[in-house]
Amino acid sequence: MNAPSPLTRDTLEALDREDPIARFRDAYEVPEGILYLDGNSLGALPKATSARVASAIGDEWGKDLIKGWRQHGWMQLPYRIGDKIANMIGAAPGQTVAIDSTSINLFKLFAAALRMAPGRKTILSVDSNFPTDLYMAEGLVQLLGQDYRLRLVGRHEIAHAIDRDTALVTLTHVDFKTAEIYDMAGITDRAHREGALILWDLCHSAGAVPVELDKCGADFAVGCGYKYLNGGPGAPAFLYVASHHQEKVQQPLSGWLGHKDPFAFETHYRPARGIARTICSTPAVLGLTALECGVDLLLEAGLARLRAKSMKLTDLFIHLVEQQCSAFGFTIASPREATSRGSQVSIRHPAGYSIMQALIARGVIGDFRAPDFIRFGFAPSYLRFVDIWDSVEILRQIMAESAFERPEFKVRAAVT
Amino acid sequence: MNAPSPLTRDTLEALDREDPIARFRDAYEVPEGILYLDGNSLGALPKATSARVASAIGDEWGKDLIKGWRQHGWMQLPYRIGDKIANMIGAAPGQTVAIDSTSINLFKLFAAALRMAPGRKTILSVDSNFPTDLYMAEGLVQLLGQDYRLRLVGRHEIAHAIDRDTALVTLTHVDFKTAEIYDMAGITDRAHREGALILWDLCHSAGAVPVELDKCGADFAVGCGYKYLNGGPGAPAFLYVASHHQEKVQQPLSGWLGHKDPFAFETHYRPARGIARTICSTPAVLGLTALECGVDLLLEAGLARLRAKSMKLTDLFIHLVEQQCSAFGFTIASPREATSRGSQVSIRHPAGYSIMQALIARGVIGDFRAPDFIRFGFAPSYLRFVDIWDSVEILRQIMAESAFERPEFKVRAAVT
Repeated sequence: MNAPSPLTRDTLEALDREDPIARFRDAYEVPEGILYLDGNSLGALPKATSARVASAIGDEWGKDLIKGWRQHGWMQLPYRIGDKIANMIGAAPGQTVAIDSTSINLFKLFAAALRMAPGRKTILSVDSNFPTDLYMAEGLVQLLGQDYRLRLVGRHEIAHAIDRDTALVTLTHVDFKTAEIYDMAGITDRAHREGALILWDLCHSAGAVPVELDKCGADFAVGCGYKYLNGGPGAPAFLYVASHHQEKVQQPLSGWLGHKDPFAFETHYRPARGIARTICSTPAVLGLTALECGVDLLLEAGLARLRAKSMKLTDLFIHLVEQQCSAFGFTIASPREATSRGSQVSIRHPAGYSIMQALIARGVIGDFRAPDFIRFGFAPSYLRFVDIWDSVEILRQIMAESAFERPEFKVRAAVT
Repeated sequence: MNAPSPLTRDTLEALDREDPIARFRDAYEVPEGILYLDGNSLGALPKATSARVASAIGDEWGKDLIKGWRQHGWMQLPYRIGDKIANMIGAAPGQTVAIDSTSINLFKLFAAALRMAPGRKTILSVDSNFPTDLYMAEGLVQLLGQDYRLRLVGRHEIAHAIDRDTALVTLTHVDFKTAEIYDMAGITDRAHREGALILWDLCHSAGAVPVELDKCGADFAVGCGYKYLNGGPGAPAFLYVASHHQEKVQQPLSGWLGHKDPFAFETHYRPARGIARTICSTPAVLGLTALECGVDLLLEAGLARLRAKSMKLTDLFIHLVEQQCSAFGFTIASPREATSRGSQVSIRHPAGYSIMQALIARGVIGDFRAPDFIRFGFAPSYLRFVDIWDSVEILRQIMAESAFERPEFKVRAAVT
């Protein structure tokens, strides 16, 4: 962004007045006195959620008990909510289910992918991938033995590291520390040219950054329900399997609800047709009910409008940090181009941990990731443009008033 | 039970008046006009749950957002609730966590057990075990290949089938179709003599039948949160690992929250100490909150009192079916001795499916399991003794008024 004269709070107030999705803020509980820039870790509460969950408890479970599974469509929740999420990730219906956790879903699909690539032994990822993605792959290859391995390369080496031993490439579409967006189309294409499959983790994309799974020819994806989707703490996650792979998927978490005929209570497992075979367990009805409220609101706001606002918010944040805080030694760790950046901006500082503590004490809620990343997430459905101004202003005050260059702050950051 | 003269409704009313835990019924939502004998499939709603979940949503998530993880102890929920459940299954603290689903927990512990028994290739179970237990074992051994196998024997052959190739014996403590209780002490001892480990599935025990995991020397256990524990549809499950095994457990669903230092976001997995390494995913806060309400009520009622009432309820049900319905060709499929029986009675009839449909239409909610099992679960915390009389009386009326010996009913039952 090139601004000829310095930005002022007035400029941002004007942007709020013009914001076509400004009214959605009222649909969320946004605590007074808090500037919440951590929606990439735990999204805010949609106001509709309390009543909807209360009804699922009191009217559905309480009154109809076991009949609820059919009468209130509890069994269908993973499919219904999955197909809603599908609208935000470029997936045609019947390929996405909301179920279990991100980690569990990763394991299912890692194992399925290795079986679909006989002779290939490598799961390939980057060393900066989100830890649980790496840990789940590590858990699987250690269980399998037989030369299966997880190979990690630097984030920019991934495309060239794919080779004939690569069964699966697994990447988080938006990097959790820097918010850098990977080239989904390009890397997917590269994986396929080498005969490898690819799994995209959409934890930091879903609900904030448009994704085109079908168009890119992605094989698998997973994602989180409690970040931008606002499903609540520990909300169910989702997974995607491209339709042309579904009948080939053999996943080892073959629980009774992925059986072709769960209520026949047969002795041997026969996988259900289609995406249903990726389901392991009885759906978590309360969690799914809350998740659906979060998803519904985003669909109403519209992902294109959310993304447009998100890019403006992050652009302005970077601009203001540079304008107001240039004296304090921050490094912008996120890409400068909004199109290459998720709905998050990370800045680095040797005293990052202490700075984030000071911000939180003043009501600006972001988070810290070792060694020195201060992360700010921007949920466009409930943040205002003035919130950006106010957050940076508090950051400026903290830096001006304190002495974060003093050694004790740096030491504290280093040991965290 | 020997009753010299026929039982009457008055007898049962008198039992309700003397029932020391009768007052607990008021702590549950029990719908008017329903005789709910399906608490072994989905337990009833504790009245406290609605307000408690509403507070977790509105006061905790809504107001405190990301801070809730520490401020409201969300991270501790699996341990806190696990240790409460531990009181009902004879487990000292630090061995039980409430997390994930029964199926997922089975997979973790099956895999851990195989690693702890090098050279042994067999998971041994009975062909009448609950299907998901078998399916998860099947999924694991198929994934592993290398001669690993799931071996199934008849229910009464299990003790003698354990041999030097048996890595793990896995059994459901209370059979889901017949309510027969397995001899936990005896079979555990037998497994250990053969050098095998044992996993007990407590889905149909926890909250209804006292279990002594520590005393029996059980190695592993899992159980369900939505049956007798009244945690709600799809509630989180629990798992138990005997403390002396915990540092040897390597389970492949090695998600970030089972890491020794989850917030260090390291590249490689290092298991947490103790039971924490069995945790894979971010705790499902809404589901756990509801589960805790169910568990708290049972602890208040006291498991000894619950079991004493449960044995009376099931004894009386069998007695009344024989007294009132002797002409209709039912077979009692559950053990006659209350001490050998869970909190459930199953009766068999060729027209079982149609009979259960007729019962449900008249407000008696039980369920049907192929080929001909009519199951009635008795949750002692909210059922009255008169409910037993009224249920059997409706069964008698249905049988007297209908013609379930007609061929079409039998055919319908056979194809279900």
